[in-house]
This record gives sequence, C-alpha cells and structure tokens, in this order.
Amino acid sequence: MNEQLKVFLDEYVPRIDLYLKKLLFADRVGVRLAAPLNDAMHYSVDAGGKRLRPVLTVMAYRLLADDWQRALPVAAAYELVHTYSLIHDDLPAMDDDDLRRGRPTNHRVFGEAMAILAGDALLTEAFRLLADEVEAGPDIVVKLVSGLALAAGRDGMVGGQAIDILSQGSGQGKTGKQSELLKILHRRKTGAMISGSLLAGVDLAQGDASLRSRLAEFGEVIGLAFQVADDILDEVGEEESLGKDIGSDRELGKLTFVSLFGLSKARFKLAELHRQALYLLEPLGEKADGLRALADYIVERDR
Amino acid sequence: MNEQLKVFLDEYVPRIDLYLKKLLFADRVGVRLAAPLNDAMHYSVDAGGKRLRPVLTVMAYRLLADDWQRALPVAAAYELVHTYSLIHDDLPAMDDDDLRRGRPTNHRVFGEAMAILAGDALLTEAFRLLADEVEAGPDIVVKLVSGLALAAGRDGMVGGQAIDILSQGSGQGKTGKQSELLKILHRRKTGAMISGSLLAGVDLAQGDASLRSRLAEFGEVIGLAFQVADDILDEVGEEESLGKDIGSDRELGKLTFVSLFGLSKARFKLAELHRQALYLLEPLGEKADGLRALADYIVERDR
Repeated sequence: MNEQLKVFLDEYVPRIDLYLKKLLFADRVGVRLAAPLNDAMHYSVDAGGKRLRPVLTVMAYRLLADDWQRALPVAAAYELVHTYSLIHDDLPAMDDDDLRRGRPTNHRVFGEAMAILAGDALLTEAFRLLADEVEAGPDIVVKLVSGLALAAGRDGMVGGQAIDILSQGSGQGKTGKQSELLKILHRRKTGAMISGSLLAGVDLAQGDASLRSRLAEFGEVIGLAFQVADDILDEVGEEESLGKDIGSDRELGKLTFVSLFGLSKARFKLAELHRQALYLLEPLGEKADGLRALADYIVERDR
Repeated sequence: MNEQLKVFLDEYVPRIDLYLKKLLFADRVGVRLAAPLNDAMHYSVDAGGKRLRPVLTVMAYRLLADDWQRALPVAAAYELVHTYSLIHDDLPAMDDDDLRRGRPTNHRVFGEAMAILAGDALLTEAFRLLADEVEAGPDIVVKLVSGLALAAGRDGMVGGQAIDILSQGSGQGKTGKQSELLKILHRRKTGAMISGSLLAGVDLAQGDASLRSRLAEFGEVIGLAFQVADDILDEVGEEESLGKDIGSDRELGKLTFVSLFGLSKARFKLAELHRQALYLLEPLGEKADGLRALADYIVERDR
C-alpha cells in the first residue's frame, strides 16, 4: 500500500471498524435468543478487509464538508451490504469458497442456513441504519435509501452476480459480445456499489449534479480497474496474499478479463483505467488526494 | 373462506396482483441480461397466495383514509419481503421444501444460486419501492423504511427464522421455557411482519400512537393465531389443501404448538386468540369489518 493512502486509512478505518463493532454488539432485543445469528453477522463484518466502500463514502463526503464522522452510518450501511454479498457469494450453491480474507468462510463456521440468514439480516440492517441513524433531513435519507437499493439490487450488484453465474462456463471464447458482457457484468457486480458508496457521500453533503456525475464515472472506472486487478491476481497471485483459493475462477470456467484478453492486455487495460481515474479527479484539486491515493492502490494490487 | 372477507379480497387483491406484475415486468435496464433472475423473482411473486400482508396494509390504511390505492407501493413492499423469505426458507440448507403453494419451490425450478439471488433482489427491491414509489412526504417514507427494516431484520422475521432453525430437534420436551421460546419465535418470525404491514398502513395515513399500538397488538395476536392454525394444519391437514408436504415440521423435530401442547390445547389456544383479536377491534367500529373478517378467516383455516 502506498504511504499516502495509509495516512488516510489510518484516520478513517479505525473509526469505521469501531462504529461497526458498536452497531453489532448493541444490546438489542434479538441478540441473546438468536446469538448464533448475531455471531455469524459479526464474524464476517469483523473479518476486516479493505473497507473500500465506507472509505469511499467518507472521502466523497469530505470533498464538501469536514465533519466526516457524520458520514459513518452511511459508510457502514455500504459495508454491511458488501459483507452480506460476500457471505452469499461464498455459499456452496454459488462460488463454493472455503476461505475468505484468510479465514474460513461464514457457512464453513456457522452452517449454510445461518450464513444465508446472516446475509439477509445484514442487508436489512443496512437500510435500518440509513433510516434510523443518519443525521440528515428526511429528504436526504430517502435519497440515500433509493441510492443503496439501486446499487445493491437487480439493476446493480445482485443483477451483476446473476449475470456472473449465468456466464460461467463461457470463459473460453473471445468475441466482442463477451467483452461487452464482461464490462456490463462488472459495472453491475462491483461498479454499482463502488459508485453508490461515492454518491452516498456526495448526497449526504448535498453536492451538486456535476460532482455527482463525475464521481459516478470515477466509481465505474475504479470499479472496473478493481475487477481487472482481481482477475490478474487470481491468475498470478499467491494464495497467502489474496487469502482465497487461487485459480478458482479459472477452474469454474468463469469469464474474466484474463481469460478473455490474456494477461498482458489485461495489464494494459488496467493502466488505461488508472489514467482515466486520475483525469476525472483533476478538477477537484488537493481535496481529492485521498481518492487519488486509492486509485493508485487499486492498480498497485497487480503484483 | 367467509363471504365477508371475499368481498374485501375481491376489491383489493386483483389491484395488488396487477401492481406487482407491472413492477416486475417494468422494462428496466437489468431485465434482459439477467432474465433468469427476473424470471425467478417473478415466479414466486406470481405464485399468488393469500396476499395477507399487503391486504393488511390496505385495510389498516383504510381505517383512516379512502384513497386506498395510494397504499399499493407500501403493501407491495411487504409482499416482496414475505416472498423473499419463503424462497430462502424453502432452500435445501433451510427447510428443504420441494413444494410451495402447490408448485415446485423456486430453487427446484431455477437452481439454488438463482433462488438465493432472487430472494436478495426482492428484499432490496422492497426498500427501493418505499423510497421511489410512495406518494408521501419524506418524513413518512423514512418511517416506513425504518418499520420494514425492523419487521424484517434480525429483531424481527430473520431473527425468528434463526431461532426456529436453532430450536429444531428440541420439539419433544414440554417445559415452560419452550413455550416461551415458541411464542418469541413466532412473534418474530410471523408476527413482526404482520404487525409491520398493519403499522405501515397506519403510518402512511398518519394515524396516532393509540391506533398504532392497538394495531401492533392486533397484529401480534393474529400472527400467533396464524401460526397455531398452521401447526394444526401441518398435523391434520391434507396435502392438497395446504400445497406443501404434510408432517414435514414433525419430521424435522420442530418445536410447534401441537408438538408442545397437543392438538386439543392448540385448538383451544386458537379460539382464545380469536376472541382477543375481535376485542381489540371493537372500538374501531364498522371500519374494521375487513380486519374482523380476516381474523375469522385465520381461525377457520383450522379444518
């Protein structure tokens, strides 16, 4: 990780982690009787990871306002939705993964039923957070709920995941149609939530339409870059550094940027996306240094 | 079904069905590429069923206002959440049911992966509906989002389902602790969404706190009655009339009112809940005739 990003993450991530911990350990009615459900929710949220989406929300908010801790409930909502999607993606009926971030996946620890329910509960909790915990006028809250539902639902992340599953076994061809499919897949599967988390920060700070569309595009670009880097890592990375089974995408015959274009063209594509991302941030000046460092980091993962 | 209820359902249900059909067939971006996802969502929503929750929303709204079609998006949101919960409950890792409402369950038709995603997408779509489609001030919409999240999440339906799974195999005992557990289980698993759908109607019509708490209690009582009737049906009903495998609860060693108290005490309990429900509606006069007919219907199912 580059030093500049580390400075930002050291400021934001501990507070995000703390917020998430307090949230899930809150002594609410259901905790004791359904303790394993709460444990399963907590296990995956607590697994850490990059906290990419909540950091994006905070960074976008900070383009316009300084009191960034106000963005924590919104940031946390995006992290909860991301976490639920990982739990469901890892299930035997989906990607059937045993490891996630170097630890056994949720269903390997709590069983499939509890893993399904933990995902369902995290998704629901994200919307409760927006409705109950965000300090903002109700018109802004409604906008945030709408944005999260769009990013996470059938026209966003879940739709992308469905296309991903439906495309399995089609990773051997090399047609323009597949390249188009792959872009749409990732625009939905990863891009929608990344753009959504940025837009949520802008919306909370009541940013204008021009900043909104600039950050939406930036989100699409880094989302795609993130996925290309992921595909490259899956091909060449080491199991320890990635914390998941290597080559598992290829085994499943999945459509990836590497399977479609080969390794060197995928790397070229990644560099191109990097330039595009930085170009989009240029007019935002110094305030966008955090987002800049993050764009750099996504590309550096390719090692 | 009693004649009085039929009059109400004939007015409401076709409009609810039409609203749901238009919603899922809307030509949105994601529909073509992820067609099987949309098919899977539509398959279960279209399976009909009683539409109990949306009807409750409309009936509660109508206690206060006449333009009941304004309640359709809110009513539909509760039906989508109910439908997603059935899809996930039927999965092999959960109840492992092959039949639902007389048709093959979602995962038997579309596969487990698509069934999991269809459930996730329906839950997300419910919140999008509230944020984007309800004609009401943003303060009311935020209240509706909060109410749905509470009814559906870890302190409501999902929490109840978790307790249900965790209690499997414990259906043979007969202690006071189990009786208490069973009530809490159903207050969450079924009661929370039934009360929630009633409260959503009240909140949309801006009803006062006293009506709110009266209907919350009514919801708890008929929710429990519904479950007691379900347990009795599972013990004595005929496969055709229920549309699901008979005795499947007993096979799983599930804690039910029948396994705990025996058939005749369960019937007595059902009659008691019926009286309680009608008592709660008394001060509401003629306007509550729909809810009255519904309370009668829930008890009549015991045949």
